[in-house]
Amino acid sequence: MSITFEHMFYLTRREHFNAAHKLANPKWTDAENLKVFGGCANPNWHGHNYVLFVTVKGTPDPETGFVVNMKAISQLIKTHVLDLVDHKNLNLDVPFMNNIIPSTENFAKAIWQQLEPHLPKGQLHCIRLQETENMYVDYFGE
Amino acid sequence: MSITFEHMFYLTRREHFNAAHKLANPKWTDAENLKVFGGCANPNWHGHNYVLFVTVKGTPDPETGFVVNMKAISQLIKTHVLDLVDHKNLNLDVPFMNNIIPSTENFAKAIWQQLEPHLPKGQLHCIRLQETENMYVDYFGE
Amino acid sequence: MSITFEHMFYLTRREHFNAAHKLANPKWTDAENLKVFGGCANPNWHGHNYVLFVTVKGTPDPETGFVVNMKAISQLIKTHVLDLVDHKNLNLDVPFMNNIIPSTENFAKAIWQQLEPHLPKGQLHCIRLQETENMYVDYFGE
Amino acid sequence: MSITFEHMFYLTRREHFNAAHKLANPKWTDAENLKVFGGCANPNWHGHNYVLFVTVKGTPDPETGFVVNMKAISQLIKTHVLDLVDHKNLNLDVPFMNNIIPSTENFAKAIWQQLEPHLPKGQLHCIRLQETENMYVDYFGE
Amino acid sequence: MSITFEHMFYLTRREHFNAAHKLANPKWTDAENLKVFGGCANPNWHGHNYVLFVTVKGTPDPETGFVVNMKAISQLIKTHVLDLVDHKNLNLDVPFMNNIIPSTENFAKAIWQQLEPHLPKGQLHCIRLQETENMYVDYFGE
Amino acid sequence: MSITFEHMFYLTRREHFNAAHKLANPKWTDAENLKVFGGCANPNWHGHNYVLFVTVKGTPDPETGFVVNMKAISQLIKTHVLDLVDHKNLNLDVPFMNNIIPSTENFAKAIWQQLEPHLPKGQLHCIRLQETENMYVDYFGE
Repeated sequence: MSITFEHMFYLTRREHFNAAHKLANPKWTDAENLKVFGGCANPNWHGHNYVLFVTVKGTPDPETGFVVNMKAISQLIKTHVLDLVDHKNLNLDVPFMNNIIPSTENFAKAIWQQLEPHLPKGQLHCIRLQETENMYVDYFGE
Repeated sequence: MSITFEHMFYLTRREHFNAAHKLANPKWTDAENLKVFGGCANPNWHGHNYVLFVTVKGTPDPETGFVVNMKAISQLIKTHVLDLVDHKNLNLDVPFMNNIIPSTENFAKAIWQQLEPHLPKGQLHCIRLQETENMYVDYFGE
Repeated sequence: MSITFEHMFYLTRREHFNAAHKLANPKWTDAENLKVFGGCANPNWHGHNYVLFVTVKGTPDPETGFVVNMKAISQLIKTHVLDLVDHKNLNLDVPFMNNIIPSTENFAKAIWQQLEPHLPKGQLHCIRLQETENMYVDYFGE
Repeated sequence: MSITFEHMFYLTRREHFNAAHKLANPKWTDAENLKVFGGCANPNWHGHNYVLFVTVKGTPDPETGFVVNMKAISQLIKTHVLDLVDHKNLNLDVPFMNNIIPSTENFAKAIWQQLEPHLPKGQLHCIRLQETENMYVDYFGE
Repeated sequence: MSITFEHMFYLTRREHFNAAHKLANPKWTDAENLKVFGGCANPNWHGHNYVLFVTVKGTPDPETGFVVNMKAISQLIKTHVLDLVDHKNLNLDVPFMNNIIPSTENFAKAIWQQLEPHLPKGQLHCIRLQETENMYVDYFGE
Repeated sequence: MSITFEHMFYLTRREHFNAAHKLANPKWTDAENLKVFGGCANPNWHGHNYVLFVTVKGTPDPETGFVVNMKAISQLIKTHVLDLVDHKNLNLDVPFMNNIIPSTENFAKAIWQQLEPHLPKGQLHCIRLQETENMYVDYFGE
């Protein structure tokens, strides 16, 4: 399915949080993980200031001029994402990341799955997750 | 209609301006407006440093390598948007926002309508309007 | 008195808020105000996304490694500044700006005076107030 | 062909480099170039800190959680772009820009052509090239 | 001793790195640490994208126009700081942070002590260490 | 002479411009210049988006709340700096850089000397010149 941008407004809310993680495939040895993931496989973890951009789409309500009330979106993100990941270890502390290698790709998809059921069908448009100032992932659902 | 990105170049010009506004539905009481819009309904106004990204699309002219001359686009934005909104009150001072609740969505659409007639058909691609560092809207026309 | 930077740590907390204001000397005519203040004197107001940097100084407590607990500073800023100015009109809604022309200079000094009495003597070091991405003021007290 | 965003992850790597250039059509006189290109036609060159965003797309490998290894992408960009353009004159020093007016559009397309053959078919999604903080171009291939 | 800014040039180099840490006083219980440090005391760690600004001062060499060669400074920072902390756990992996609570203050001072012996006496001027976009520390030595 | 920050307001204006340059000592061979300056000595030039921060200091006029009118400062910067360097070659096109190696240090001092005579004595406080996102120089006069 291709995406139709027209006749739509896209609202983006930016949030941020901090977390520790490591990238390692549990089926591999430390040496194999180090070879593939480099310093990201450091057994004692490393961490990031993540920046999260959540984009929802729709048509403004003529009574308010709002597609959605950003405060409600912000509260949803807080409840279903930030409260679970901020100042946490993504590998150890976050139930929705259980058994998932916390690559930016996998983490972005997991955040989509945390938010999508709490929004009207079709409203969630994109999760952009920025891990460093030089890298980010966009995910539009599946 | 879906959007075809390929065979196209997308140029974006960034501009900024400052304005006051309030969000309130004139049919509602102050209490109702406060409930829906929160502090944004403050009767004495508040304001923002808006950042505006105007994206145009096309194929470069082989004589210049330009899809469009950015100076001309910048002048268009100045004449039809910035000169009318910078250091103004969006609710009181801006004819093209008359009777429109100045939500980011409605304001982005109004900016589209200010610019689109002055550009070749199909050239305007997107208006991104950023109200704070944590919120922006994208509008691709209708 | 000159400032001694050494033997000291300087902690800066960044906050942001939005407000409307206008620059006008009440003793002057509209024409005089327009001449001096330009668009900033627009009678119907304009506004900004202000960015506030509060710097405190001191020596870290060996038990915590903290000069101050940033959460306490953040709460002080919220109580004595943000709750009073965010989504407000600086000329009309803010008691601590009463009868003060809300230039960035005057506003920075007023924020200093809001915070200084609530901190240990000598701890407040600098108020940086950024009005637009192209202008800011630093104030180190008096 | 329209673009299908869904069922895909989009990874973006940000890089930067510095270069000199001028915009001038060699068939035109200096006066004609000055008229069209303004200061960008200065015969003695000017220059920019370019920021380059390279976006690749795909599905994560379940063994790694990676669509691609960003280190490999970063190395490709270094070899085929940065090592050829950083601290260079785009008009004089860069073989892949030979006889091309170095507008942002033309330069973005040339960077696409430098990278695309070294990636699996269909993996390169977008070249965003930012020339100043107020202007950038997106190119999605042809 | 007060600082004399005049007759001097101040050069700042910006670097960045990622690390995990936790804030906890080993003499305290988990409950006490949680009370003082909040989420920063999470036993399973969290992490940050740190931004480091190293400022050196001096007078330019008339032969080069350089106070110092920034490449040499950058290499020093890499050898004595980045290679030891990037993608590491500040509490477990970094010898120069051994037995030090890794607050931003303590970490900034430790970075100063890593760099200062490798520079001519008096050349190091300031370590600015930014832990999040909303907090940073400046340290000018002792 | 040490600097007294107190009893003073410090206003900073941010401007930007683009220029080409190269770093080379005319008394040296190309090989010697390459050894010292690396890619910055490229004979065909390279370039930058410079960001300039001009800080002036003083006490606000009680009639306006302004230390200085920022529009006047901005006009001074335009006349005495931007109009002379924007879209220029610092080595070839700029009289006030004649026979000066355009290092960031030397360029910052030259900008100081361009502006200082046009301001009341003692009002100019600092020139910060940022050459890339990772390097800048501060100069407080002599």
